[in-house]
This record gives sequence, C-alpha cells and structure tokens, in this order.
Amino acid sequence: MKFDVTILGCGSATPTLRHNPTAQLVNHDEHYFLLDCGEGAQLQLRRFKLKFQRINHIFITHLHGDHYFGLPGLLSTMHLLGRTTDIHIYCKADLQRAMDMQLKISGSWLRFNVIWHPLSFEGREVIFESSRLIIESFPLKHRIPACGFRISEKEKQRNIIPEMVKKYNIPIPRIRQIKAGADYKLEDGTVIENKALTKDPPKPKSYAYCTDTAYMPETAGNVENADLLYHEATFLDADSARAKETLHSTAADAARVAVEGKVGKLMLGHYSARYSEIQHFADEAQRIFPNTVLADEGLTVSV
Amino acid sequence: MKFDVTILGCGSATPTLRHNPTAQLVNHDEHYFLLDCGEGAQLQLRRFKLKFQRINHIFITHLHGDHYFGLPGLLSTMHLLGRTTDIHIYCKADLQRAMDMQLKISGSWLRFNVIWHPLSFEGREVIFESSRLIIESFPLKHRIPACGFRISEKEKQRNIIPEMVKKYNIPIPRIRQIKAGADYKLEDGTVIENKALTKDPPKPKSYAYCTDTAYMPETAGNVENADLLYHEATFLDADSARAKETLHSTAADAARVAVEGKVGKLMLGHYSARYSEIQHFADEAQRIFPNTVLADEGLTVSV
Repeated sequence: MKFDVTILGCGSATPTLRHNPTAQLVNHDEHYFLLDCGEGAQLQLRRFKLKFQRINHIFITHLHGDHYFGLPGLLSTMHLLGRTTDIHIYCKADLQRAMDMQLKISGSWLRFNVIWHPLSFEGREVIFESSRLIIESFPLKHRIPACGFRISEKEKQRNIIPEMVKKYNIPIPRIRQIKAGADYKLEDGTVIENKALTKDPPKPKSYAYCTDTAYMPETAGNVENADLLYHEATFLDADSARAKETLHSTAADAARVAVEGKVGKLMLGHYSARYSEIQHFADEAQRIFPNTVLADEGLTVSV
Repeated sequence: MKFDVTILGCGSATPTLRHNPTAQLVNHDEHYFLLDCGEGAQLQLRRFKLKFQRINHIFITHLHGDHYFGLPGLLSTMHLLGRTTDIHIYCKADLQRAMDMQLKISGSWLRFNVIWHPLSFEGREVIFESSRLIIESFPLKHRIPACGFRISEKEKQRNIIPEMVKKYNIPIPRIRQIKAGADYKLEDGTVIENKALTKDPPKPKSYAYCTDTAYMPETAGNVENADLLYHEATFLDADSARAKETLHSTAADAARVAVEGKVGKLMLGHYSARYSEIQHFADEAQRIFPNTVLADEGLTVSV
C-alpha cells in the first residue's frame, strides 16, 4: 500500500529558482494530504501531475508566509475548476480570518465548504482520525506558534493464511473475525488458535514532519520510531549562531533528533537560500545519522 | 531611452504550466513599475533576471486573486533581502487591510515603508507624477471595481543643435533655458528664435494597460494614441457569450478598442486556461487590427 511523500518545495523564506517555499504532498493509498502550502504550490502540483482536487486535508504548521502564501491561490483554483467537495484545513485560527478577508475583498466565494480546525499548539494531540490513519500535532519551537505533524497508520488486521481457509473450510463471515484476532472452533469442538490461522500484518508506518523549529529535546518523543522524519535544516554548522538566533535548525540538529527519536530515515529540507550547494547538508547530518536523504522538488520518498 | 514592458504572467485566473497569472514589469529608463502581481511574480522576476528591489511602485488593477496573490510574497522577500526603500502601492483600499492582517498573523514586520495610494475607480485621474512620467488610472468594467493604467512620458525638452552653441558661443546657463523653449539674444540685440537653435524632441510615448474588463466604448478615449495598448483577451469569438457573462473581452473586443483608440500596437493577454493554442487570439484580432502581438511569459516589448 502506498505511503509516499512528494516534495513540492523545500526552500526557506525567500524562494529561488532552485527551491520553492515549503509544501509537500502525502499520498496514503491515494488519499492526499497537503502539508504546508507555500507560494506556487498549486503549480508544483501541476508540474508533478498530482491531482490537487484529490486533496481533502491541508495542514499548516505556522503562519510564516513561506508556509501558506500559496493557499488562497490553491483554494481559488479548486473553486474555478468546479470543486464541490469539502476541504479541511488544520492551522492557527488566525488564518481563517485572513482567508475570509481575502475572499471578501475580491467579491469571491467558494462553491465548496472550508472546514477550519484550529490548532492549539499546546502538547501532542490527535487532530484527524480515519479508519486507517491518525494524525497528531505537537509543539515546535519557533518565533511564532508552530507545530509538527505525525501521520501514523493504525494497526492493520492480521493476514489470514489461504491454506488454512481451505483446510478448515472457513466461511467468509468468520474470516473477518479471524482477521480481527478471533480463534476458530471446528464442529468437533477443537479450537484452532488465531496465530495458527494468520500471519502478522505489516507493521504500521508513520511519518513525522517538523518545520520550522529550533532543536528541542522534546521532539524525540514526538517523532519516536517514525519510519521517516522530515526535519528542517535551514543552516549548516558554520551558521549555527544564525540558526539559534532565528530559531531554526542546522543539519546536525536535525540528525540529533533523528538519533534520539530512533527514526528509520531522515529527510532534510527548508534550506536557506544562501547555500547554492545542498550536498553539504547531507554530509553534516550523515556523520551523526547515516540514513539521511535530501529533500528536493519533485522527489518522492516512500514511508 | 528605454521604455519596455516585460510580461511576467499573461494567463487568467487558473495558472497553468504554460501561463502564469497576471504581472508585468515596465522599465522606463531603469525606473521599474510593476503592474499587477499574480502568484509567483517574484519567481518570474528572478527567472527573467529583473532586479525586483528596483521596483518602487506597484499598481494593482483589481482585487481578484490572480492579480495580487503574489504581493505578500514579493513584499516579504524584499524585506528578507534587506530592503529599506519605501514602496508605493496603488490599489483598492481594502488590499491594505488584507496585507496588514497577513503581517499581523505572521508576527512579521517590514523594514521598509509601504505607502498605500487608494484608487477611486471613478473617472480618469492622475495617480503618479514624476519629472518625466505621468501615470493615470481610468475605470474598466468588471465584476468588481477595476481600472486600467496609462503610463505617459511628459513632453521632453527640445534638443539644442550643437553647431548653434558653437556659432553663437552660448553659455551653459542659457542652454538650459533654450532647451526649455527660450529664444537667445545676441550682444548686438539680434534675437535668434528658438526654432533656429533647437530640433523637435522625440515624441513622448505612452503605454496603456487594460485588464480585466468587458469591452467598453469609453476605453478608446482613455487609451487614445497610446503607442502600445495591452488589452485583455480572455476568450476567443466562439466563447463570446462566456466573455459577456464574466465581463471579460474577446480578442476581437480588444482589437476594436485598439482601432477606436488609434493606438500604435496592441498586445493581447490574460488567456483563459481552456485554450492550449494562443495563436488563434492573434488571428482573430489581426483581422480587425493588424499590428497585434501576443503576450507571452518573458516577452519584452518596447513602447
């Protein structure tokens, strides 16, 4: 089952021809979730042939413009192309006021509902739940309220062994119960234990997304055991003073969070426009956490 | 002297990979004026290597998002790159409130002054004047208040004939007066008339910019004798009913304005995303007004 992250933008506040401002699309089994929406996100979705009308949930980490200036344009285009499906936006409550004002001054309306979910930015909390996924927010440390998101698959049902279905001639209604963990009783009263009938399901996966933030020790707990962690790395070590001053992270800070959180893989992004060569970010992080990759526009990484 | 228009975007409301939303840069002798600022305008400026810190005046025709969604990002980048010079924005007053709210919710500030010039959208009026240029706004006909802009060079000083300076040994302070139209009196009392001392200056040029608008007969007067007219042509003839309904123009409407306004050259733009081939716009307009060119991203046209 697909659980992919596609990078639409991984630059920082000043967009360049090399890197767009922050936005990424998570595709979980063809359910699309947009994380942040920097200016030009709608064009990036087109560029990478991602059907943006399939996005029903948008998550905005914080209200610096490089994380949301693409939102009014995206909503407007969704409207113009005939969208009628609700869209859910998870963000600081203030953003609703700003978007409503923009609609008002342009004499515009949207033919679909926008359902706003204000975030508290206090502690870890579940902000979305479906039959298959849980999405949580947790606080980050930036100049304005900011949070990370964690998208986690729920425990999956056990996989039934086809040979056992045949051997015991198990009827379909019972198969569902067995997948959910039940044993199976034969007509003669013998009980076949669930673990003889099924195999362990694939391990549920999770993706953690942390941007923008200074290094904070508490993040390790919030991203613990994530299969993939995206962590901002705005600066290289040489500019760590600037990172501290602006409450951003260096590549080494991000790698430290990856180690402490025991994650499977680390992806870096949110590179400052001052660096023309991003390979140095990988070099600095890999010394601390070897399984590090660099975000880049158009890159898709499987969770 | 340079008087150029560079197209940053000439698509309509839904941006595509082919056409960006509306924005264009007017360069008058290295003074930059930005007309509209659709999403992504700042990246287009970078793409075409136009130094956007040189822009001191921004003119927004109306508050549909495809004409201003790029403004917060552009102002933010100007700030981040250290701008301290004032910027003047000419637009509907509502836009100031929307921009102020965005700054507020992001906990941001700009280190330069934004000087807002609210437009009335009623009648033709001078909204900018320098020693060399006059910029006027005039009403257009759209679903919300919208206006066109006309950038006109002032009458230039007469060109003094170098041979005459030598012949009569004219001192420098008098040269300035002669350029401004004065005659020159020799020591013996003989008066040399100005027209013997000078040549006619180059004709002042003007550029008229009309988007978004339905066809309106009054526009001819406002764009009269412009050397270059940019007029929106969202639709082709086959979709003229849709043009009427949405208060946009067809290519033929734009050409009619060009004929009635006796302009030198017509440039079409604001193409609806429904058309994959823009050459048809030229075909339909040129039947009515032959000297028609098609706007395209990156194209620079001299006024």
